[in-house]
Amino acid sequence: MYQQIGAFDPVPKAELLQRIQALKGLMAQSGIDVGIVFQNVDQFYFSGTMQKGLLVIPLATDPLLFIQKSVARGRAESALDVIPISSEADIYPILHRRGLLRGVAGLELDVLPVSTFERLRRTVGFDRYADLSPLIKVCRMVKSPFELTQIRRSGQMVDHVFDAARHVVREGAREIDIEARLVGEGRKMGHQGFLRMRGINQEMTSMTVQSGFSGALVTCADVPIAGAGITPAMPMGSSLKRVERGVPVTIDYGGGYNGYVTDETRVFVVGALEMRFQRPYACARAIIEDAMEYVKAGVECTDVFQRAYRLVQKAGLEDYFMGHGNGQVSFIGHGIGLEINELPVITARHKQVLKAGMVFAFEPKFVLPGQGAIGIEVDFIVREQGVERVTAGSYEMLCL
Amino acid sequence: MYQQIGAFDPVPKAELLQRIQALKGLMAQSGIDVGIVFQNVDQFYFSGTMQKGLLVIPLATDPLLFIQKSVARGRAESALDVIPISSEADIYPILHRRGLLRGVAGLELDVLPVSTFERLRRTVGFDRYADLSPLIKVCRMVKSPFELTQIRRSGQMVDHVFDAARHVVREGAREIDIEARLVGEGRKMGHQGFLRMRGINQEMTSMTVQSGFSGALVTCADVPIAGAGITPAMPMGSSLKRVERGVPVTIDYGGGYNGYVTDETRVFVVGALEMRFQRPYACARAIIEDAMEYVKAGVECTDVFQRAYRLVQKAGLEDYFMGHGNGQVSFIGHGIGLEINELPVITARHKQVLKAGMVFAFEPKFVLPGQGAIGIEVDFIVREQGVERVTAGSYEMLCL
Repeated sequence: MYQQIGAFDPVPKAELLQRIQALKGLMAQSGIDVGIVFQNVDQFYFSGTMQKGLLVIPLATDPLLFIQKSVARGRAESALDVIPISSEADIYPILHRRGLLRGVAGLELDVLPVSTFERLRRTVGFDRYADLSPLIKVCRMVKSPFELTQIRRSGQMVDHVFDAARHVVREGAREIDIEARLVGEGRKMGHQGFLRMRGINQEMTSMTVQSGFSGALVTCADVPIAGAGITPAMPMGSSLKRVERGVPVTIDYGGGYNGYVTDETRVFVVGALEMRFQRPYACARAIIEDAMEYVKAGVECTDVFQRAYRLVQKAGLEDYFMGHGNGQVSFIGHGIGLEINELPVITARHKQVLKAGMVFAFEPKFVLPGQGAIGIEVDFIVREQGVERVTAGSYEMLCL
Repeated sequence: MYQQIGAFDPVPKAELLQRIQALKGLMAQSGIDVGIVFQNVDQFYFSGTMQKGLLVIPLATDPLLFIQKSVARGRAESALDVIPISSEADIYPILHRRGLLRGVAGLELDVLPVSTFERLRRTVGFDRYADLSPLIKVCRMVKSPFELTQIRRSGQMVDHVFDAARHVVREGAREIDIEARLVGEGRKMGHQGFLRMRGINQEMTSMTVQSGFSGALVTCADVPIAGAGITPAMPMGSSLKRVERGVPVTIDYGGGYNGYVTDETRVFVVGALEMRFQRPYACARAIIEDAMEYVKAGVECTDVFQRAYRLVQKAGLEDYFMGHGNGQVSFIGHGIGLEINELPVITARHKQVLKAGMVFAFEPKFVLPGQGAIGIEVDFIVREQGVERVTAGSYEMLCL
C-alpha cells in the first residue's frame, strides 16, 4: 500500500545490521550496555522506519524495535523484527524479563528532553547513563553506497530547482515569491517537505533567498547567511525584499530525498554584478576550485579550512568571510545526511581526517555589511582520489 | 531595517510585562524563584524576539534578556532591556553577582535536552529544579486581544488558500502537486514558512492533502488523519496518490502569521460524494454546528467532547471517529497559538473550563479503513457568549 503512493527505498537488511554492529562496536569501547534510541531520525537510521515507538540496542543481543503505531507500516519498512506495544509502559517489563535493565544505558542526551529522561529513570534501574549521540554521529558520518544513492537523488532536486530558478529570479521579484515558486518545484519532484537540523531551537526551511542587504544581516542562526524572514517569530529566511539589478541573489536550497538532505547555494544576478561583489565572488569560486583539486580521503579537515582561509587572506577579505562582526561563523563546511548538521565540521580547530564516504557541504561565503552576501555552496562526497560533486549543474553565478 | 522587509508587529511592552507578571504569579504559587527560558518559542512569547540567547525571569526582579546574536535585532523587536553577551558562559557570572543562582530554578523540562540541563547544573548551584513548562502553557492558554489579531490574520491565510484550492483540486491531480501549489499561495501571502509543534519528534508541515485510502492509514502521528507521505523517512503528509472522482479530498492547512498558527480542514470532492462518506460527513457537520451553538466561556471541555461523542453514537460511527483501530486519537480539539499543540485539549478526560480568549481547533473527523477520511476542522475563539470563528469562509464540503 505504501509503495503505491510513495517513493519507497527500503534500507537493505544487511545494511541495517551493519549499522547496528558499528554502533555496538562503539558502545563496547565506551562501556555502554544498552542503547535506547528515542529520536525519530536515529530510529530511522538504525531500523529503516520512523514510527511511534522505541528502538533498544543491547550490546549482547538482537535489537528490539518496539512500535505502538503504525505496526503495519513498521513491518513493511523495517527489516528488523517488530514488537507491537500498546503504550510505552509495555516496554520496560519486556526489557526487565530479558535482563536488559542493568549496566550502563546510552541515551541521546543532546536531544532527549529532561522530563522523558526523568520518567525513564524513575521507571527503570540502570547503574548509569551515558551519552549515545556522539557514537551515533560517528556511525552516521561515513555514508554507505545506499546512502550515497539517496544523497545523489536529493542532489537531483537541487539541480532541478536551480535550473528552474533562472526563469523565476527577476528584477523586482520578492524573495518570498521566488522561494514559494521554487520550493513548489522541488516538492513536485518528491521533496520530503522539510529538512532536519539536530538540537533544540534548530529550525530549517528548505530554501532561503537573499537579495542584497537582507543577506547581510546578523541573525540568530549559526550560518553565514540566514536572511531576515518576515516576522520576529521566524527571524530568518526569505523576506519581502525585492531583487535589485546588479546585486547578488543568493539561493540556499536543500533537497530532501528519502530522508537525505543536500544543501547548496547559487548566486543569480540580474544584469552585471556590481564591482563591490566581484572580488568576494571570485574568491569563493577560487576556494571551491582549490578544494576540488585538493580534498580527498586522508586530508585533515582543519587543513581544508586553513587552505581556504589563506585564499581569503590573499584577497584581503577576512572581515567578510563567513559573515561579519559577531555574525561570523567558524566553519566553512558541515556534514550532511539525514540531518543538516552532521559530522565532519570543517573549521580551524575540529580535527578529523576525511574518509571515503563522508559527505559535506562546502560553503565559502562573504557578507558585506549593509550591502549583501555572495558565495557558493556545493556538496562533496569524499573519495579515495578526490571529491565527487553531489549535483551535476554548474556552481557558477548566473547572470540573467 | 527589519520593518522594510517584513511584516513587523512588535508585541506591545505592556503586554510583555503582563505575560511576565502572569508567569511570576504562577511561579510564586509553585515555589519557583527563577525561571530560565531556553526554548525559542517561549523566549518569543515573553520577550517579543527570538534570538540566540537566554531569558531569565527572577521572581523578585526584572527579567534579564541575554542575547548573543543578533543584539541589534533583539533591541529592535523587544521592549525588554537587552544584555549583550559573547557566549552562554557570560550569563552565569552576571546571575551570580545579582544573587539569582539560588533557590528553585524553573526550566522547560519537556523540551530542554538532558545535556543542556547537565551543563547548567554543573555550572551553577540551584537548590532544586522544577518544570516551568506547565506554567508557561497555562500563561499561553488564554490569548490577549493582540494575539487574537495575529491569529485572525493567520486565519486569513487559511481562507485565501482554501479559496484557491477550488481551482487546484481536480481529478487525477497528485496530493503533493495540490500541496505544492497551495503552500506557495500561502507563502506569497506572508506565511512564516512552517508551523511549530512542541516536543521531541513532533514534526509538522503546514499542509497535508489526503485523497481516499491515503487518508485512512494509521500513522505514527497523534492526529486522526496524517497521510502516508512519500518516504519512510517522513511517514506522513501528502503522497503521490491521485484524486479520484467521488472520493473526499481532505486538506488540512495551518496559517502562520507572526508566529501564530491556525489549523483548519476542508473537504473537496470531484463530482458527487460517494454514499459511504455521506453519513460521516453529515455527522462532522452536525458536530460543528452543535458546538457553535453550545460552546462558550464557562463550558467544561469534557462536556464539549461528550456532546460531540453523543452525536457520533447516534450516527453509529464510534468505530471511525477520530481514526480507526489503534490510529484512533482521544481528542476532538486542541489549543492553538504559537504552537499547534497548546492547551486546552478537548477530550473525554482533560478537565478544563473554557475561558474567554482561549483558541482551539475543533476537528470532528472520521476514518473509513481502506477507503478514506472525511471531516471538518475549524478554529474557535472562546467568547463570553459563544464562539467566534477564526476564518470567514464556509467550512462546508465543496463539490467541484
